[in-house]
Parts: sequence; C-alpha cells; structure tokens
Amino acid sequence: MPKVPAEARELFRRGEWTQDTRAICRGYTNANLVIVPRDLAYDFLLFCQRNPKPCPVLEVLDEGDPIVKRLADGADIRTDLPRYRVFVRGELVDEPTDVAEYWRDDLVTFLFGCSGTFLDPLEKAGIHVRLGHGDSDPGIGVYVTNIPTVPAGRLHGPMVVSMRSVRADLVSRAVMVTSRFPNHHGAPVHVGDPAAIGIRDLSTPDWGRGPVTVLPGEVPIFWACGVTPQTVAQESKPGLMITHYPMHMLISDIPAEEGVPV
Amino acid sequence: MPKVPAEARELFRRGEWTQDTRAICRGYTNANLVIVPRDLAYDFLLFCQRNPKPCPVLEVLDEGDPIVKRLADGADIRTDLPRYRVFVRGELVDEPTDVAEYWRDDLVTFLFGCSGTFLDPLEKAGIHVRLGHGDSDPGIGVYVTNIPTVPAGRLHGPMVVSMRSVRADLVSRAVMVTSRFPNHHGAPVHVGDPAAIGIRDLSTPDWGRGPVTVLPGEVPIFWACGVTPQTVAQESKPGLMITHYPMHMLISDIPAEEGVPV
Repeated sequence: MPKVPAEARELFRRGEWTQDTRAICRGYTNANLVIVPRDLAYDFLLFCQRNPKPCPVLEVLDEGDPIVKRLADGADIRTDLPRYRVFVRGELVDEPTDVAEYWRDDLVTFLFGCSGTFLDPLEKAGIHVRLGHGDSDPGIGVYVTNIPTVPAGRLHGPMVVSMRSVRADLVSRAVMVTSRFPNHHGAPVHVGDPAAIGIRDLSTPDWGRGPVTVLPGEVPIFWACGVTPQTVAQESKPGLMITHYPMHMLISDIPAEEGVPV
Repeated sequence: MPKVPAEARELFRRGEWTQDTRAICRGYTNANLVIVPRDLAYDFLLFCQRNPKPCPVLEVLDEGDPIVKRLADGADIRTDLPRYRVFVRGELVDEPTDVAEYWRDDLVTFLFGCSGTFLDPLEKAGIHVRLGHGDSDPGIGVYVTNIPTVPAGRLHGPMVVSMRSVRADLVSRAVMVTSRFPNHHGAPVHVGDPAAIGIRDLSTPDWGRGPVTVLPGEVPIFWACGVTPQTVAQESKPGLMITHYPMHMLISDIPAEEGVPV
C-alpha cells in the first residue's frame, strides 16, 4: 500500500491499482474531479459558486491542459486517478481506468474538495470512521437526497450526501472537526432522520461499500458529497462530463490539515 | 442617516446620497461589485476562484439580469449603489451615480465580500475602526501592492489592500475576529512593514479618506481589498468592466454576522 501520494498516483497511472482510495495515503487532501468542455465551464464554475457545500473548488486547470499545478504538481488528470466515469448527454457510457482516449483540447478540469480529506482529522479527534471492510466495520453510504441544488445555466439536480454513523456523544465533535474544512464540504448538511432529506432506507445506498448500519446509540450524519455533479450530469444531460468514479479520488500532495485554498 | 438597508438603497437610487457608505447601516453585509460582459464572465469567475482573498464571491446574477436575488432581494444593481466606475479597455471613462445607460443584455453581475462587513464585529470586539472623519479620527488607506494575483484567462494584475492601524495589543484579536469572515477577505494578508508588500508611504494611499496615520504603539494591518478588480481592469484592459466606486458599496439585507455564503 503506497504511503506517498506521488507513488499512489504512479500506481494508478500504470493501471496497477483500480480500487477505491479510501485507505490510501491517509492524511493527504483528496479531490473530486469534474471535466467539461469549455462551453460548459462557466455554467459549471457558477454551479460550484452557488453550491459551495457539495462543490468547493480547489483548482481549475486552463482549457486543454491536463496537468495539475497546485494540488499535485505534474499529475496527469487523464491517468492519475484509479477509475473514471464518462457521461454523454446524461448517459453513463464508460467507467474506464484512464480517460486519455476522451481527451480534447477544449476540456476544462475542475478539482474540488472531498470528505476523504477530513477522515484522518476525525480519527485523530477520536472519532472512528468506518471503511467498509466487512461486517465488523460496516461502510459508508452515499445517497441522492431531495435537497435541491441552486441551478446555474444549464445545470441542475439534487444534492448527493455521504453518511457516516457516529456515537451520539461524539456528534458535536464531528461537526466541529469537519467545520474546520469548509473546502472539503465542511460541516454536515443534516444530522439525524434520513427521511427528512428524502432517504428511505439507509441500508440501500445509491453508492457505497459494505453493509451500512447505524448501531444502537449512534446518529447518522450527512455531509454534502462531491458525487453531486454526477447526478447533475444525469439530470441536465450536458454533451460531455467526465468525473472520478465514486470513492476513487485524486490523491494530492497537500497535507489534509492545510485545508486549501485561501 | 438611513438605518435600514432598503431605505439606504432607495436614497442611492434617487440620487440623494452619492457619498461613501462607511457609516451607513453598520452591521449589515457590504458587497463589492464587478459587472462584465458574458464573454469575460468565465475569466472573471475563475479569477475570483484563484484569488479568494481579494475576491470572495457572494452572488452571481444571471446574464442580463440586473436584479439582486439573495443579498438584497429586488435591489437594482444599476442604480442602488451611490457611485460607480466604468472602465473601457482599461481606461476609467466615467464615475456616474447610476449605470443604467451602460446596461446591456449580455452583462453579468458579480457581488463579493467587503471588509466593510467586519467593521461592526471589530468594534464590538473592542477594536475601534477609524472612519476618516478628521484629524482626530484619521482614515483608512487603500493601496496597490507588489503582491501578484493569480492570473485567469485574460485577467491579471496586482493585489490591492486596505490598511487599518490597530494598537499592538489588539493585533491578535483583529486577526481572530476577521478570520471569522472568509467571505469578506478574512484574515489579513500582511501585518506590519508596508515596504515588504511594496507600499512606500502609508500617508499617500492610492484611495482613501483623510490623513492616514499609524499612531505610536500601533501596527498597520493589511487586508485584501475588493478594489483589486479595478487595477486588474487597468492592467488587463478588457473591453468593459463596471465596478462600484471605492468605499461606495452595495448595502445588503444580510446581517454581517451571517458571513454568507455556505
């Protein structure tokens, strides 16, 4: 298991690791990915400005440039994540391990914050975060909600959230710790009753890993999630949107505690 | 002197108040203004994303729409500030009290945070902020620095800062209070020695009001300033940029302590 982000990205680039990045290089900033053609770039950046909880922007690459500058100097955005999703007119058409064949000179890359970034700070604050390694460590769930995002140009759709279940006496601390990371979804958007945000059954997440369980004495906590643009693509049907595959993130060189930007 | 933002905007709209807004409706969120044609809107929004200290975006209006929605419901951006500046190809061509005659259907309005917002919280924390009402209350200064902004598309230029002089034992508190307002320039970009950021003489600000003095026992503190896009217009020479006149802000309906957005 690689410990240094550059090594992890090298593994992903060579196609030698195509699984999720939950346990890789903990303590480093994780980033969500969205790539759209230049003609949709303003709408998408405006969508992020209007929806900073799910889409806190960390870095935007110049048109046609696939090389990351600030978050992971020299990383090639076409190859350095373990898996991608490709949406064409709202249809999911491919889930490749690199997107070199889809690259065009008019594509603009957006990297934005990810709750993977605050997992290490949560652990260090004494809040165990489950990774879905089996029955004894049930996973996190990712859910489409009935919380509307604020539309921007041609883009609209519901907010996606990630749920982590926390012991009741640690809920306040979990809110405080994550509120220190506004560029990584920040404080939760909802605490408690899943039905209030349109989630019928926590045990059947829209994405996730392992059985999702809220143990006795725990409270489910919901954070805005960087998968939101993928449901926006499905609803809004733009010509092309390329994203990371859920939980298969860009691992940056930035220590999580830096919180970037500002 | 109006106490309610809607009354203040009404005065500005009727042209009955064309002075600065420093002392008007303290305790409400102030906003900086930039209006550009749609063809420059992506570059400007990207500039804001890359330079969140001078340009923290609070609201973006849709193309051609002059009516504010979130910050001041129903305010007309063409008339509801006391004074504006109009830059054509980098030249300052007009400083009118409304910009109705310049309005076009392709204009996009950006409103972003202003240090005027944290003056009331500073006062409440026991830090007197001068308003430039005379020798006994010397004013604030606004200065072009040698700190480069991060370019975005066609836009580039130096950062502008505002200076407030604070008693040495209150510097730490001033940093803490303003750090709670990341959407209003947040914590200072520089504390102390003006020469280190390219300011030769504090007593001759590029903009400002009244004599600017650092009294014995005080330290000058510099915050990123929303006048920055105006120097960017002068350096980058876009076809058209309309801004507020320095210190003549949009007074919103949002209490300062809300800090918007998120």
